[in-house]
Amino acid sequence: MTDYTYTVYYGTFIHLPRLPEQPATPTSPPKHKLSVNHGALWVSQPDGKISGADWEVKDETGLEELIKRMGWRVDGEGAGELVRIVKSRKQRNGFFFPGFIDCHIHAPQYPNSGIFGSSTLLDWLETYTFPLESSFGNKENPSEAPQSAHTAYNRVVSKTLSHGTTCAAYFATIHVPATNLLATICHTKGQRALVGRVCMDNHDLCPDYYRDESTASSLAATKATIAHIHTLDPSSTLIRPIITPRFAPSCTPSALSQLGALAASTSPPTPIQTHISENLTEISLVAELFPTAKSYADVYDSAGLLTPYTILAHAVHLSAKERALVAARRSAVAHCPASNSAIGSGLCPVRELLDDGITVGLGTDVSGGWSPSILEAVRQTCLVSRLVRFGNTGAAAAGEKGMGREKISVEEGLYLATRGGARVVGLQDVIGGFEVGMYWDAQMVEIGSPVDAGNDGSREGNTSNVDIFGWESWGEKIAKWVWNGDDRNVKAVWVAGRLVHGEAC
Amino acid sequence: MTDYTYTVYYGTFIHLPRLPEQPATPTSPPKHKLSVNHGALWVSQPDGKISGADWEVKDETGLEELIKRMGWRVDGEGAGELVRIVKSRKQRNGFFFPGFIDCHIHAPQYPNSGIFGSSTLLDWLETYTFPLESSFGNKENPSEAPQSAHTAYNRVVSKTLSHGTTCAAYFATIHVPATNLLATICHTKGQRALVGRVCMDNHDLCPDYYRDESTASSLAATKATIAHIHTLDPSSTLIRPIITPRFAPSCTPSALSQLGALAASTSPPTPIQTHISENLTEISLVAELFPTAKSYADVYDSAGLLTPYTILAHAVHLSAKERALVAARRSAVAHCPASNSAIGSGLCPVRELLDDGITVGLGTDVSGGWSPSILEAVRQTCLVSRLVRFGNTGAAAAGEKGMGREKISVEEGLYLATRGGARVVGLQDVIGGFEVGMYWDAQMVEIGSPVDAGNDGSREGNTSNVDIFGWESWGEKIAKWVWNGDDRNVKAVWVAGRLVHGEAC
Repeated sequence: MTDYTYTVYYGTFIHLPRLPEQPATPTSPPKHKLSVNHGALWVSQPDGKISGADWEVKDETGLEELIKRMGWRVDGEGAGELVRIVKSRKQRNGFFFPGFIDCHIHAPQYPNSGIFGSSTLLDWLETYTFPLESSFGNKENPSEAPQSAHTAYNRVVSKTLSHGTTCAAYFATIHVPATNLLATICHTKGQRALVGRVCMDNHDLCPDYYRDESTASSLAATKATIAHIHTLDPSSTLIRPIITPRFAPSCTPSALSQLGALAASTSPPTPIQTHISENLTEISLVAELFPTAKSYADVYDSAGLLTPYTILAHAVHLSAKERALVAARRSAVAHCPASNSAIGSGLCPVRELLDDGITVGLGTDVSGGWSPSILEAVRQTCLVSRLVRFGNTGAAAAGEKGMGREKISVEEGLYLATRGGARVVGLQDVIGGFEVGMYWDAQMVEIGSPVDAGNDGSREGNTSNVDIFGWESWGEKIAKWVWNGDDRNVKAVWVAGRLVHGEAC
Repeated sequence: MTDYTYTVYYGTFIHLPRLPEQPATPTSPPKHKLSVNHGALWVSQPDGKISGADWEVKDETGLEELIKRMGWRVDGEGAGELVRIVKSRKQRNGFFFPGFIDCHIHAPQYPNSGIFGSSTLLDWLETYTFPLESSFGNKENPSEAPQSAHTAYNRVVSKTLSHGTTCAAYFATIHVPATNLLATICHTKGQRALVGRVCMDNHDLCPDYYRDESTASSLAATKATIAHIHTLDPSSTLIRPIITPRFAPSCTPSALSQLGALAASTSPPTPIQTHISENLTEISLVAELFPTAKSYADVYDSAGLLTPYTILAHAVHLSAKERALVAARRSAVAHCPASNSAIGSGLCPVRELLDDGITVGLGTDVSGGWSPSILEAVRQTCLVSRLVRFGNTGAAAAGEKGMGREKISVEEGLYLATRGGARVVGLQDVIGGFEVGMYWDAQMVEIGSPVDAGNDGSREGNTSNVDIFGWESWGEKIAKWVWNGDDRNVKAVWVAGRLVHGEAC
């Protein structure tokens, strides 16, 4: 491979500018606006970070002038630093966009995508999920992951990359070899990831065929995967471990506390992920199992699990007190609307979470959610926010503050999918946008060339479900992409400057 | 073209058997089950109807035996009737499925798909919809449709066909030439369609730039498009006219009554389509505009517009009395969940409609709905039915009857998309399933070949978003198709035996 100093990306660059951290005032939702720039941006080869950008470069001549001015060369001869050029195609409405961040996905459940019948959370776990997850252990050779784990994990990482997901917070299973395999596959394929072995040591609640043998073994197994990941990626640049008590009912109080202590024992503290307040029956169960706790959130807080490095999946039915506690601890929420709708968990009032100052990102929650796509999560976020006023009392209260405030716009959905997610996984300074110094974690999207009277059929084959008629602004094109786009529109994906999916032009 | 007597389709055939018309008893939702058959089915060439089927044909040898037994020949020589063979591919999980029926779609709005911001119904009409629809008139040459109408209508018909829609009930605009053009394009491309010119003669409510000049001109224009469609397709086999008062607020009481009388004046009566009870503000407006009417439904009933040939789009917020009235008149509902969620109209309690004996089919409602796909409508139907218990009081009442009853299964969603839609458009005896005597209105779907350990990447390029792992039953494969499938999986589409999209193998 030739030693380039920089890769120069040329074309249209769209991202969502960072907003200040303060919560919006109750009468005005935050105004998220797309930043659309045309020009050139360059990424340094050794570290995959954005080195500079020039939005005065208007055309190919301007690009040549930039190269000359910077003293670069694009072929093997002469002096100057060698660069290569990657272009987005204007005639196909191409643009560069930050990679998506999936804040909550169960990698082993991927083969079950779309299979959930009419179940709700607890029977869904028993019927569909625990049987599949338990198969990631290898009865004949417990020290190795079974072939099916190789198949599923290779596929889910390839699949999420193909949908533009450059960073994911994965739940694996209870099995150390398979969890380590997932971390290795992410590392090999180049997807940024947090990988967690699932802790399930409560023998009263977890099925005989799928649980940790003891609290001690649960802790030991967790430490073993953390050690593997540190060996795999000593700098924690690409892959990081994450402590993963499945959810309160699956863990003993002792395990919860020890996991909290384990997270706090490292410097920086190890991230934590779990589920909270997803389903009404689950919430009753937690109240029953932890009779002295003030709330579901308090169960985690008492165990030291609500930290600034904690990702709480779902949070559909949090009380105002719980929201205040989560905000005070600076823990973050992974909003999983596809899953919440698919298994009928409820309508999460995201605006209330945001108003209370809670950081929110998006999760696919495969396979409670049917789709590996964060673009689908953006759509479902928008939809649920338009229905929430017909739902729970909290939303009705929000409605009083200002009709329509609860709605998440396409732009805000994309913000949650990129900037929001970056904050959720603690990487807001290095991913989620196109600032100089950030990693080039990005996707090249092509919406497709415009339909015209002589071209009403298949256009370039079957390459896009989005139809552009030629009069759309960038804002309208982006809305069309969000609503009807899919993996076909994702032409190339990079993580830290490395091409990890598709082809660059 | 060679004169085949029959086309013999060979492979896997899946449809939903017809259920009796009686409403389900309140304690047990109807049990929709997939009918999965392997074998051969043949369609007669002249009329495009299913002539016979043989589910004993197990393999290629069996197929050869069938051909011999029937006295057919597959090439140009010898005696016997000439047939051609079309196969679904087992290795790609291919199957034949009835074409989808879109019971409610606004053809002119297609270019706006995905563009609606955070609007709700009435401001959405003013901001996005009326300006676009008004452009289908031609100011320079009022007797011809403008070029943009050719582009949009060619595209929407091609697009819906490519998503497997073999029959659609279209709203056009107020313009006669463009409405006639839409009917002609459907006829030319071979899509079964009901095409309606939109009536909007209420000058108090319709914008100056987009309305019928008078009640008389509204009626005359409606009759002109009906006449065009009868000339185009005298037997009404493929294209039928449909009387289309946009919705109560856009029409004068006089126009509503005259349109009702016009529908009743033909034999058989002309079908009718309109909107009902979509949005709470709209419902208040109707109550204000029609102070003597007992309800929104009563406005239509008083005008003679609630008939067994009437399609009512949305019906999100009908009262129990209105549901009883609609059921008594045997009018049908086009459920449009994507649109209802996208523009925040509400959660339609479909189970209540079905329990009350109302016929329900699915509509995309492009572009209130963002997607031209009825498969997407099936997904949204399932999702909304899982959220409705968190919504309005009606659903809470349904919940009391039996927790989970309100949920629409994948199978029931597909039933609504095929059999339900066929009843909505009055064609339940000739489309919607694979019975002998029905038209071959069908799609050939390929879910894709299974993922395996050595094949975790792009498989056959980018040809399916659905991942099959090899252990799935047909029920599970169909669930995976419904949740993650799209137009890529639609390999060929036929209407009345004519190939109207894709390629047959």
